[in-house]
Amino acid sequence: MNRFLCFLFCVLAVAACKTHQTAESITPADEAFMREAILLSVESVAQGGGPFGAVIVKDGEIFASCSNSVTLDNDPTAHAEINAIRAACRALGTFDLDGCVIYASCEPCPMCLGAIYWAGIDRIYYANTRQDAEAIAFADNFIYEDMDRPMAQRNIPIIQLLRDEAQSAFRAWTEKVDKTEY
Amino acid sequence: MNRFLCFLFCVLAVAACKTHQTAESITPADEAFMREAILLSVESVAQGGGPFGAVIVKDGEIFASCSNSVTLDNDPTAHAEINAIRAACRALGTFDLDGCVIYASCEPCPMCLGAIYWAGIDRIYYANTRQDAEAIAFADNFIYEDMDRPMAQRNIPIIQLLRDEAQSAFRAWTEKVDKTEY
Repeated sequence: MNRFLCFLFCVLAVAACKTHQTAESITPADEAFMREAILLSVESVAQGGGPFGAVIVKDGEIFASCSNSVTLDNDPTAHAEINAIRAACRALGTFDLDGCVIYASCEPCPMCLGAIYWAGIDRIYYANTRQDAEAIAFADNFIYEDMDRPMAQRNIPIIQLLRDEAQSAFRAWTEKVDKTEY
Repeated sequence: MNRFLCFLFCVLAVAACKTHQTAESITPADEAFMREAILLSVESVAQGGGPFGAVIVKDGEIFASCSNSVTLDNDPTAHAEINAIRAACRALGTFDLDGCVIYASCEPCPMCLGAIYWAGIDRIYYANTRQDAEAIAFADNFIYEDMDRPMAQRNIPIIQLLRDEAQSAFRAWTEKVDKTEY
């Protein structure tokens, strides 16, 4: 009986740790910022955009609140996260969003996730998943899966040529002493 | 001896097929468009941008010629390919670049590759590789590797919350009868 109790307490301790960890990483402020992103995603549908919203926060203050405007702006890159990154950079006068957190109403697609890495954002919160997006006919999951395949097996053919000639720009970059790195 | 000759001819036939396939997929026009992208990448370094260029072509005509302007425009999404996709969409008045081909002086990063999929571009030609970019301290390869890891092991923490609430926008999208899909 003692052994059973010991096992039971171990299981409860692990469960408590896990619960504590989750509670620690999600605050009421995080929920409030995510609700703002969700509100943007709902309003976007009514306004003719895609059902996605994103908010970028620094030091507890919102610097960008955007929704998806792909069809409204004739711009396939105008996802909520990309729009928000560009808006936050304009607001903060920098290409480096170090110290910022993004709240996206859906898991970022590969384009948006890549942009988040390039922007140097600290942390990502998301609500819907790529599978949820797939269920309403968005290509997020398809793109993740396709770009993970070897080039020869992808749906969009990708072919290399003239690498030797293209190296000239990389050499010029290496040799440039006054460049702005990013 | 006959068996050896048979084996030899088989090897030569396969090699000929492979050579033919490669020659078929790269034309002098492809090389000319790629040289334009490479020229943009070299000029970009001199002008203070990153060492990357991209050209978008439809029916043999160039509709966008862009270089990387991340630091010049304070926009981490302003890679050559993203700039070119946005410019081609403006030029063609559409968010759908079906029928277009992109020539990029370097293998597209995950952000740009994702954008190419969303834009519906038919085919990608590239010159430098993600490993070449890594060798001059660009994060392309790092981002590819990191986004391939399970979420809990990634360098940028990514945390889910409020999925149930976020589903409201997806339901609204499904129920909307006059939506523009993409």
